[in-house]
Amino acid sequence: MFFFRKKKKLENVSNFNNKIIKIGIDLMGGDYAPISTIEGILLSLYELKDLHLKITYYDKIDYKKLIENFINKLPKRSKIYNYFRKNLDNEILNRIEFIPCSSYISMSDKPVNILKNKDNTLVKVFELLRDGVVDGVLYAGNTGAFLETSVLVVGRLNGVKRPALLTVLPFNRPVLLLDSGANPECKPEYLLQFSIMASIYYKKIISNSLPKLGILNIGTEKIKGNSLAKESNKLIGSYIKTNDNLFSYLGFVEPYDIVNSKVDIVVTDGFTGNIMLKSFESLGEYVFNFIKKEFSLNIFNRAVGLLSRRIFKRIKSYFDYSEYGGALMIGLNGISVKTHGRANSRAIKNSINFTYKLIHNDINSIIIKELNNIRNITLNS
Amino acid sequence: MFFFRKKKKLENVSNFNNKIIKIGIDLMGGDYAPISTIEGILLSLYELKDLHLKITYYDKIDYKKLIENFINKLPKRSKIYNYFRKNLDNEILNRIEFIPCSSYISMSDKPVNILKNKDNTLVKVFELLRDGVVDGVLYAGNTGAFLETSVLVVGRLNGVKRPALLTVLPFNRPVLLLDSGANPECKPEYLLQFSIMASIYYKKIISNSLPKLGILNIGTEKIKGNSLAKESNKLIGSYIKTNDNLFSYLGFVEPYDIVNSKVDIVVTDGFTGNIMLKSFESLGEYVFNFIKKEFSLNIFNRAVGLLSRRIFKRIKSYFDYSEYGGALMIGLNGISVKTHGRANSRAIKNSINFTYKLIHNDINSIIIKELNNIRNITLNS
Repeated sequence: MFFFRKKKKLENVSNFNNKIIKIGIDLMGGDYAPISTIEGILLSLYELKDLHLKITYYDKIDYKKLIENFINKLPKRSKIYNYFRKNLDNEILNRIEFIPCSSYISMSDKPVNILKNKDNTLVKVFELLRDGVVDGVLYAGNTGAFLETSVLVVGRLNGVKRPALLTVLPFNRPVLLLDSGANPECKPEYLLQFSIMASIYYKKIISNSLPKLGILNIGTEKIKGNSLAKESNKLIGSYIKTNDNLFSYLGFVEPYDIVNSKVDIVVTDGFTGNIMLKSFESLGEYVFNFIKKEFSLNIFNRAVGLLSRRIFKRIKSYFDYSEYGGALMIGLNGISVKTHGRANSRAIKNSINFTYKLIHNDINSIIIKELNNIRNITLNS
Repeated sequence: MFFFRKKKKLENVSNFNNKIIKIGIDLMGGDYAPISTIEGILLSLYELKDLHLKITYYDKIDYKKLIENFINKLPKRSKIYNYFRKNLDNEILNRIEFIPCSSYISMSDKPVNILKNKDNTLVKVFELLRDGVVDGVLYAGNTGAFLETSVLVVGRLNGVKRPALLTVLPFNRPVLLLDSGANPECKPEYLLQFSIMASIYYKKIISNSLPKLGILNIGTEKIKGNSLAKESNKLIGSYIKTNDNLFSYLGFVEPYDIVNSKVDIVVTDGFTGNIMLKSFESLGEYVFNFIKKEFSLNIFNRAVGLLSRRIFKRIKSYFDYSEYGGALMIGLNGISVKTHGRANSRAIKNSINFTYKLIHNDINSIIIKELNNIRNITLNS
């Protein structure tokens, strides 16, 4: 994901309930892995003193050397340098375990091939989640592989028909988009479940208020759109009549309503959602590249460009994916977060902190309860 | 449509074959109608000396006064002012006919209501096209009404299963997108027909070279996407094996390939296409508004903003819809062009010139021939 909003400082959630939070990470996932991942991991361990990590890695990688390189790059006499020099062998290495695998998944590997050789870093890290060894997984690699493996290995939450990829779009106010890519074909009942799951996420993670929810469509009149939009509108419209505690329902919304934050949660199928997400991302890149080119056309433009540098830097920071936590595969039997393939070390660190927050808030147990409620309503009616 | 490329000068196509070109226009269509439409009409009549127009208008409108107001706004002693002062009553009014109607369609009218009272400016202008009184129609109003009315009144070209809305996306090179909103639900054979029609359009209107064509999808592997994408890929893939003269087939493409002009024609259903188009438009607006806000944050930024004004003006002109011709409803039994609801007089003028060019190139007869060829192939095989 290309553009993403200014980070918010992670609130101090450490040591809540005295539960130790354990996250699994595939060291090999991402365009700049394993260097970006190891650096992000160490930065997180420095920030969150109760964080424990299980790292699956390709056994030809010398992770000790990567750690050493990272520490040597730190400014000597800095607080963080001293921390690592002092605590590496005891406190830090007690909080992190490295698990070797004989293979790993590259960005170009096809999802269908992943389960053929199961001794790979991606399958292994999800097996840790399935077996309860970790509470959540973060992955920065191949999205297709992530979707396939997470569902196959970890499985769905009790009552969930289809897990969905939930992405936070960083407009003036955050807008949750789901499904942003997991299910190219959907049914109205999936969209209803997406709505329920996202509302719980919204309340727990974004803001403790009633979110405004809409179905993505090509117009706002009832007769507009494809049959999925129209049928889902009927289903969600009738659900909300008896269940108005989770979200307030706007009906149909369009991309214009999303960029202007007139809606908090947008539900759609994973085909349309993914196309919209990628359209936003690629147009954002296109516009910035276009502006850059214009500002280097001649000497005057270059001079004004130099003066504008600080302003553009600030603007770009709002659109920077590395400030952003990642997309949650919601509805899985465990917290699974996918961050950008281009994630650098800072992005990895932010994503680990984000995964930590998701685990801490334990949204899955609330989802199970709410879906059970609907089932009971449906059975009784 | 928000962003659109720098206009190209209309080549001098006047008086080709000595055929008089007649265009019908609904004076009442568009946010700034009837002033924007009357002004665009007069500008076009000034530029294209063989253009004839039939204008449907709401009979409470005093169009003579609108014309008078326009001429009075022109700089006295200018060439255009003198032209209108000299020729209004003879040459110009001979090329334009005003047809009164007792009602018109507003931007908020629902498509379903339009055919209830047929004596409205929109139905009437399409009846002129149906009856051969004009060769094409331009409309700047309500898109839903345009789609509905054009198909119902004008009807499909012989052999066409579904007309589609063809939009030209103005990236570094123009990219044709269809269906950009007419058919929310599509079948693979529609996408094949869209491909054939768009290729003919491309060769006649954009560039006399073989266009690269792709199906919009959420990934480029064969197994990716929804069933429409996968089935259409099979159908178009097998069609291209025996018909390689219209386009070269790329398989699946993503939004990234579109903004980078790696593809010339993108086919998809009208739901996905419309969402993508609106995502591009609304993100473009969002980014420009964001930049504007940042450049007015404080005195320094405002000063740099003033220096950058010329640069941004140039950048915005590339993204300005008013430079853009409009979207063609391709596959209809007559040329029907929809331009932006927000079209100003210059945009209306450009759209009339664009409609003129489309009529002149007579793409419909080539489409009929090509579709006949496929039918024969299918029948023989």
